[in-house]
Amino acid sequence: MALQLPELKKLVKVLKEKRESEGKCSEGECVKGDVFLVGTGPGDPELLTVKAVRVIKSADLLLYDRLVSNDVLDLVGDHAKLLYVGKTAGYHSRTQEEIHELLLSFAEAGATVVRLKGGDPLVFGRGGEEMDFLQQQGIHVKVIPGITAASGIAAELGIPLTHRGIANSVRFLTGHSRKGGTDPLFVSENAADPDSTLVVYMGLSTFPSLSQKLMHHGLSPQTPAVAIERGTTL
Amino acid sequence: MALQLPELKKLVKVLKEKRESEGKCSEGECVKGDVFLVGTGPGDPELLTVKAVRVIKSADLLLYDRLVSNDVLDLVGDHAKLLYVGKTAGYHSRTQEEIHELLLSFAEAGATVVRLKGGDPLVFGRGGEEMDFLQQQGIHVKVIPGITAASGIAAELGIPLTHRGIANSVRFLTGHSRKGGTDPLFVSENAADPDSTLVVYMGLSTFPSLSQKLMHHGLSPQTPAVAIERGTTL
Repeated sequence: MALQLPELKKLVKVLKEKRESEGKCSEGECVKGDVFLVGTGPGDPELLTVKAVRVIKSADLLLYDRLVSNDVLDLVGDHAKLLYVGKTAGYHSRTQEEIHELLLSFAEAGATVVRLKGGDPLVFGRGGEEMDFLQQQGIHVKVIPGITAASGIAAELGIPLTHRGIANSVRFLTGHSRKGGTDPLFVSENAADPDSTLVVYMGLSTFPSLSQKLMHHGLSPQTPAVAIERGTTL
Repeated sequence: MALQLPELKKLVKVLKEKRESEGKCSEGECVKGDVFLVGTGPGDPELLTVKAVRVIKSADLLLYDRLVSNDVLDLVGDHAKLLYVGKTAGYHSRTQEEIHELLLSFAEAGATVVRLKGGDPLVFGRGGEEMDFLQQQGIHVKVIPGITAASGIAAELGIPLTHRGIANSVRFLTGHSRKGGTDPLFVSENAADPDSTLVVYMGLSTFPSLSQKLMHHGLSPQTPAVAIERGTTL
């Protein structure tokens, strides 16, 4: 597992020694730290919530991946450890299970751990899986919501997600298929709804097959559409 | 219209005189002020974005309705005018057209106007209508997104909006029917989707007929459901 890496083992050891020196451990077991799943919004650091900024500035240890912007990382305090858990080209890419294990090890060592998530942790962020795993291990998890990409981009471009007489509901789905292929398996027939705004997250690669599929299921080819990348950071 | 009210006419006059004294008007026409549609999130003032706090603190004039919490209003600067445009029991309730007219009059008088919206301005907030109207009148409108109730409540209660293997999409719809009745007209057949989380805004009064309708369209009676009121303010 990822924690086999010498630098991470050392970090857990240092954290544990710190807690022991503070009298927060007995017989090798420390008071467990909390884990915060913090939504960092769509990229612009001014779109963080006040609560997210407070939690980020007070953290001992923060885990982040490529969906968290550099401007957000600049808010992290000098004393805090920042750990990248995303995919790196040509380098070992951590699995979801390894991320779970990392979060657990740090919390068990008594650290206040912040897991930074692009957008909102509970919208396509796999935040629910991290929350479930940690809670099952007796770790207290607190979720701080973030501006999800749909809201951030709608505001930036001035495109309402719902609009009287045009869209009476809005639906978010992911353009990634379960197996990582290019077929948007998650687009069920009922996504082709002319009265609903459809927001497809991570949808650029599957856009051609998605649009075909929506038209096949009855959506008009005249339906207005936009494709957006880096909507709030450029 | 609402601006016939003496105190509002006086306010517009005062604003205009102020702009004239600053040399921002010529021949009775002032440099138009901007309008900010600001999402104030689900109630907890710590869930405002950093940008929303900045804009709220710098505003000349703020319009709000009952969906904006008192804790949020406490952030408003001492010099600013705060105007309630919501419904009051036993008192004249402003129509959407009157709100449009108010926003326009203040912006034309040169004020920086902030329209506070509960949640996100572009999710069931009628923000799109206010934006359209003002832009057609040549007013520059800027939208600041907010944490929508679905995200705020999901985080507070620890209920993921999407979750691998359980819900691969999330849909927001309104429990209010177009004519204000109790039949959730906006619930189309395809909302009864077992693979999608359904979030119904303003849905308490229509909950009984809504649940019947969803089951009629095939949703299992065993589908987990929660009903939430004031999810982040109590």
